[in-house]
Amino acid sequence: MRDSAGTVIFRPTLCHTFSMKKMPDPPPDSARPATISQRLADEIERHIHEGAYRVGDKLPSLRELAQLHQYAKNTVVAAFEILVSRGLVEPRRGSGYYVVGKPAARRGEEAESLGRAMDIVWLMREQLKSEPGTLAVGDGFPPVEWLADVRLDKYHQKVVRTGVGGLFRYGSRFGYAPLREHLVRKLGDFGIAVEPRQIVLTHGANEAMDIVIRYFVPPGGTVLVDDPGYYPLFGKLKLAGARMLGVPRLADGPDLDMLDRLLSAERPRLFFTQSLAHNPTGSDLSQAKAFRVLQLAQKHDVLIVENDPLADFKPVGSSRLSSLDQLERTIYIGSFSKSFSAALRVGFIACGAALASDLADLKSLIHINSSEYAERTVDVILSAGHYQRHLNRLRTRLGDATAQAAQLLQSFGAEVFAKTPQSLYLWAAFPGIDDSLTLAEDLLQQKVMMAPGRIFGVDSALVSRWSRFNVGAVLDPRFEQALAEIAKRRNLGS
Amino acid sequence: MRDSAGTVIFRPTLCHTFSMKKMPDPPPDSARPATISQRLADEIERHIHEGAYRVGDKLPSLRELAQLHQYAKNTVVAAFEILVSRGLVEPRRGSGYYVVGKPAARRGEEAESLGRAMDIVWLMREQLKSEPGTLAVGDGFPPVEWLADVRLDKYHQKVVRTGVGGLFRYGSRFGYAPLREHLVRKLGDFGIAVEPRQIVLTHGANEAMDIVIRYFVPPGGTVLVDDPGYYPLFGKLKLAGARMLGVPRLADGPDLDMLDRLLSAERPRLFFTQSLAHNPTGSDLSQAKAFRVLQLAQKHDVLIVENDPLADFKPVGSSRLSSLDQLERTIYIGSFSKSFSAALRVGFIACGAALASDLADLKSLIHINSSEYAERTVDVILSAGHYQRHLNRLRTRLGDATAQAAQLLQSFGAEVFAKTPQSLYLWAAFPGIDDSLTLAEDLLQQKVMMAPGRIFGVDSALVSRWSRFNVGAVLDPRFEQALAEIAKRRNLGS
Repeated sequence: MRDSAGTVIFRPTLCHTFSMKKMPDPPPDSARPATISQRLADEIERHIHEGAYRVGDKLPSLRELAQLHQYAKNTVVAAFEILVSRGLVEPRRGSGYYVVGKPAARRGEEAESLGRAMDIVWLMREQLKSEPGTLAVGDGFPPVEWLADVRLDKYHQKVVRTGVGGLFRYGSRFGYAPLREHLVRKLGDFGIAVEPRQIVLTHGANEAMDIVIRYFVPPGGTVLVDDPGYYPLFGKLKLAGARMLGVPRLADGPDLDMLDRLLSAERPRLFFTQSLAHNPTGSDLSQAKAFRVLQLAQKHDVLIVENDPLADFKPVGSSRLSSLDQLERTIYIGSFSKSFSAALRVGFIACGAALASDLADLKSLIHINSSEYAERTVDVILSAGHYQRHLNRLRTRLGDATAQAAQLLQSFGAEVFAKTPQSLYLWAAFPGIDDSLTLAEDLLQQKVMMAPGRIFGVDSALVSRWSRFNVGAVLDPRFEQALAEIAKRRNLGS
Repeated sequence: MRDSAGTVIFRPTLCHTFSMKKMPDPPPDSARPATISQRLADEIERHIHEGAYRVGDKLPSLRELAQLHQYAKNTVVAAFEILVSRGLVEPRRGSGYYVVGKPAARRGEEAESLGRAMDIVWLMREQLKSEPGTLAVGDGFPPVEWLADVRLDKYHQKVVRTGVGGLFRYGSRFGYAPLREHLVRKLGDFGIAVEPRQIVLTHGANEAMDIVIRYFVPPGGTVLVDDPGYYPLFGKLKLAGARMLGVPRLADGPDLDMLDRLLSAERPRLFFTQSLAHNPTGSDLSQAKAFRVLQLAQKHDVLIVENDPLADFKPVGSSRLSSLDQLERTIYIGSFSKSFSAALRVGFIACGAALASDLADLKSLIHINSSEYAERTVDVILSAGHYQRHLNRLRTRLGDATAQAAQLLQSFGAEVFAKTPQSLYLWAAFPGIDDSLTLAEDLLQQKVMMAPGRIFGVDSALVSRWSRFNVGAVLDPRFEQALAEIAKRRNLGS
C-alpha cells in the first residue's frame, strides 16, 4: 500500500482483522445494504461497549473495513453514519472516525515521519493484547510456563539486600555497575571481550535501538535492515525519518551480493541485523557468512548493529558478528525480555568505549537514566545459580519444541525456511497459498492468531507466502486442530 | 557562547570546573610555561588513573582549561601534547582530546541537533555524580534522609502479592491499570478530573517530555519554555532540532506581555512551563496569572505542557493550569522521582483521551512499554497509608526548611527571587556579584557545589546574578561556613 505521496506505508488491515475477530461472517451480498450497515454498526457499538474500542480510539478506516469484509464502501459509510447518529463516534477532518469522548487536546500538524511510523504501532498494540481463548501462534514470546520457574517473586529479599532501601537517586549514567560486570562475563562466554565501561544499560533492547538510531541517523539518512525483519525496528527508523533499505535474509544470513550492492550504491550509515534465531525467519548466520559480512562492512566503512534478543536460547558458541569483530565496527544489543521478563524492561548496548560514553550521555539526555531498581533485580536473578539451570532447561525445551514444530508444519505440507537447532520462530509457507494473509484470516476464524509474512517486510505491501510460527504455540493442540480444519476446506499442500 | 554557525550552545565550562575540582590553584603566571604544562599534564594523568576521566572520555577543551585557570592557550596545548606523547590521550579531528582506549566504533557524521544537545549532557552527568565530602547546594533533590522513611524495601512482599510472579509480558500500552487509577484519584485531589484512559505511564517524567516533543515538534518547530527553566528539557528540545524561545519567568508566573508577543509573532506549537515550585526559581504561579495564561493559550491556539515534578511538596489546592483547564489544552506531566525514588523511573502524562492513546502508541513504538514491574512497586507504595504520612511530613519539613534557608541566605545579604511556602529551591542573588559563576567557583574551593543561574538560561551565554540553592543543602552547616569564609574575602552584600 502506498499513500498519496507514493511512500510505502504499513497496512493496518491485519491488526484490525484481529480487533474485529468477533465480527460474524459477512452476510451474503444479496442482503440489503441498509441491513448490513445496521449489523456492522451494531457490531462496532458492541465492541465499544465491551472495551475493544475505547473513547478516543480510531476506528478502522472505511477502506479497511470494506476490503476486509468485502463490503461496498457505501455500506461502511452508512454504518459510520449510524454510529455518528447514535453519538458514539465522530469524524475528524481527513483522519477517520473516532470513538467519542471529552474533547481531547488537539494534535499539531503531524510530523510526516511520525505518521508513517504510527502504522506499525497498530501491530505492536496487538502484541500487547492477550485475548482469552485465542491462541497466538505468531507470538514473539516463549510460552509463559517455560518462564514461570524463574520465580521473579523469589528474589525480592535479595534485591533488598543489595541496598535498594537507599535507592533515591539516579545512579551511574551507564547503569548499575554489578549488572554490567555480569554482562562482561556473559559476553565473554560469547567470545566478546569487553570492559564494563563498554556497556550501557537501557530501558529494554528496543530503547537501545532507538538510542543508536537517534545517535547515528539524521532525517533522510540511509540504513540497511534484514528483510524480512523486526518491524518494531522499522517503526523506529520511520519515526526517525530514515531511508530504510532491505537486505534479503537467506537461510544462512544476509544476501551478500545484495548487501555489497547496497553498500556500494547507497552508502548507508548502519546495517541492523540479527544473527541468531533471526526474527522472523528463525535462521542462524553461518560462520563463513559472518566473516564475509564483516569484510564487506570494512570495505564500505559501515557500522553493524547486531541485535541478539534470543542469545540465551542458543548454544554459547553460536556464530555472532560481534564475536569475530570484537566491537570494532559492531554494536551489540542484548535483552532479558525473552528469557525471563519483559516487564522489567532491562536491555543493554555493548560497543566501543567512546561510543558507549556518548550513548550513555544520550540516554541521560532523553530520560536521565534507566531504572537501577529494575537493574538490581535483574542482577540478583542472573547471579542465582538457579538461573543457569533455568536457561539450560529452556534451551533443551526449545530444541525439542523446534524439532517437533517443524515436523508438525511439514506434516501439513509446509516448507520450513531454515532448520536450526533452537529457534523461537519457524518461518514456513504452504504450497498453494500465495498470500499468507488469507491463511491468517482462516486461522482467525478458528481463534488462532498468526503472524503473516508481510508484516515483517520492509515493503509490507508485498504479498508474502511465508508466516512466522512460534514453536511453543505450534505445539498447542488447538493449532493442529485449526490447521486440520482448514486443510479439510483448502489445499494446504498435504 | 555561540558556535561558528551563530547558534547558542551551552557552555560546558562549569561542569568541567566540577570535574577538575581536585586541581591545585594555578601557579602564578611568572612560572615558566613548560612547568605549568607539565603540572597540568600530571594532574590530568592523575585524574585518569583515579578514574575521574575514563578511557573514551573527552577532556575539557583547550579554551575551557585556559579560561578556567587563566592559562595561556599554548600552555594547555603543551600539556595535551605531553599527554599524547605519554600515550594517554589522542586528538580527534575537530572534536578535542580523548582518553585513549581500544579503538571504538566510529561515529557517523553527527546530526547537528544532537551535537547541540550533548553539551547539556555534561551538566546532567555532574548531577549523577556524588563526590564524597562535597556538599551539593545546587542539587535538584531533597536530602536523602528526608526520603529514607519511604522504606522502599518494606514493600517488596506486597509487590509480590500483586502477582509479580506472572509478569512475563509487556502489559497495557498505557501502563499498569491500578496505578493509573491511583493517579486518577490523586489528580482529582488537584481538581483535575480524568479517567484512567487519559493517563499514560512513562519511564520517568523526562521520558514523558521526550515523547511529547517527538509527537508534536518537527525539526525546526518553535516551542516556548520558561526562562530560566529546566535544562534537561532544553537538551531534549535541542536534540529534536526545535527552535526554543524563552518566556521570562517572574515571581508569580510567566511574563504575560512577552508570552503574548511570542505567541503572536512566532506561532509556537507548545509552551512548556512549570507552575509550582518552579525549577530553578522556586516561584509559584498565581491564580490570576494562571487564568490569563490560559486565555492567551486559547487566543493563540497553543498547547501548554505543564510539568509538575514537585506536586507532592505543595498544598493540594495549589494553582495549576491543568486544574483550570481540565486538560483541554494542557498536557500534565507528573513524577515520583522527587518524592520517593528516582531509581524506579516512573512518571506519567495526563491529557485528552485521543492524545493519550496516540502517546501510548508512540511509547510502544520507542520501547514497547514502560516497566510494569516498577509501576507495580510504585502502586503498592502509594497505596500504603504510610505514604500519606510520609508526604505530610515531607511538606512540613520542606516548609520549615524553605523559611529557614531564605533567612540564612538573607542574613548574608542575598536577595531571594520568590518567597513561597514550600519550595525545594530558592533562587537568590548577592549584591555585588554580577556573575554567579564566580561565586560557584569560590564555593567549589570550599567543597560546595552550587548551581549558578546561567546553566538554567535558554541562552546560557548570558551572565546571571542568580543561583539555585537547594533548601535542604543550604541548612547543612558546611554551607554557612563556606559562605562565611567567602564573605571574609569579598563583599557579599552583608
